[in-house]
Amino acid sequence: MITQSSIDEFLERLASAQPTPGGGSAAAIMGAMGAALVCMVCNVSIGKKGCEAVEAGLQAVRARSETLRRRLGSMVAEDVAAFDGLMAAYKLPKATEEQKNQRAEAVQASLRRATEVPLDCARVCAEVIELARRAGELGYRGVISDAGVGALAAYAAARSAALNVYINAPALKDRQFAHASLAELEKLLVRCAVESEAAYTIVRNRLES
Amino acid sequence: MITQSSIDEFLERLASAQPTPGGGSAAAIMGAMGAALVCMVCNVSIGKKGCEAVEAGLQAVRARSETLRRRLGSMVAEDVAAFDGLMAAYKLPKATEEQKNQRAEAVQASLRRATEVPLDCARVCAEVIELARRAGELGYRGVISDAGVGALAAYAAARSAALNVYINAPALKDRQFAHASLAELEKLLVRCAVESEAAYTIVRNRLES
Repeated sequence: MITQSSIDEFLERLASAQPTPGGGSAAAIMGAMGAALVCMVCNVSIGKKGCEAVEAGLQAVRARSETLRRRLGSMVAEDVAAFDGLMAAYKLPKATEEQKNQRAEAVQASLRRATEVPLDCARVCAEVIELARRAGELGYRGVISDAGVGALAAYAAARSAALNVYINAPALKDRQFAHASLAELEKLLVRCAVESEAAYTIVRNRLES
Repeated sequence: MITQSSIDEFLERLASAQPTPGGGSAAAIMGAMGAALVCMVCNVSIGKKGCEAVEAGLQAVRARSETLRRRLGSMVAEDVAAFDGLMAAYKLPKATEEQKNQRAEAVQASLRRATEVPLDCARVCAEVIELARRAGELGYRGVISDAGVGALAAYAAARSAALNVYINAPALKDRQFAHASLAELEKLLVRCAVESEAAYTIVRNRLES
């Protein structure tokens, strides 16, 4: 059993007037929940009667989803650090020309980081969705709904991370980097939309068969 | 700051071969995260310069989202209890005619509960999405992306909860209750799809303005 208190504590911190943890952290956690559910589908299916022929596939999906779960789990702290870094940069003094320049540089470096972190979150979530689809295809029927939930969680996470890119990219002075980030993001989101619907459909069809 | 260890602990339990917590609990947590983010948008916006005219609206959204966050938080335990109850019912002895009847009754009562809990989760998530839309309209621009994340989280939660209804409803002998539940669910999901996209669009438009 999960301790109800640890969940409640996290939800209260999320709800508080403190800006962190916020949407970026919530995105990373949703992605990590998606990866964890894919992992669980594999863990339950491996060794089950009827799953022998696909065991190697399930082992591979489990190993990769476990790695991505840890990666997304650590992105919660990265998101908080990126946001706090940006807020700190905005608060730097701007009385002299030199201070103004230093502040502008710090703001740009922080904006870049605050764009890279959610973009990376979206990249990892795209891979989680593909693993969820695979788990939905291979997994034990009694537990594959959790692969569907995993795909939905990772897709919501990718779109949530995207919102954080949209906030920060416009203020970047390095327009080449900003455009490249937005272009990559759009491609990722299309792939995530298609793959998550495919995963959901596979799961629903197998549940109804 | 959230304690990284409490998140890691929860994610590990989710990933384990234990069937609970599973997708139903993940759905309730995603919904609760959505409500918490709506609450946070209100908490940050109330008292901010420029938000004076909409303060009463923000107060109302905050109060309701706080109630729904607590309701969804408690659904994690309800989901685990419903699932465990169903598993226990399936394991009841069926050696005699009387045992068979008792087991069938227990299974049906548990299936009903395992349908009601996720259906109720979807109902609450639909309301969270509407609050997220409202928070996206009224909230302080610097924090409204979190209202968008709240809508996405609650929508993923509603669709995830739906998967659990789809698993359990077909085995219900009370076909009237099963059909009524599925019909209500389909209406809820249509409303959730429309409202969550509306919330996302409002947030993106305000971010780009």
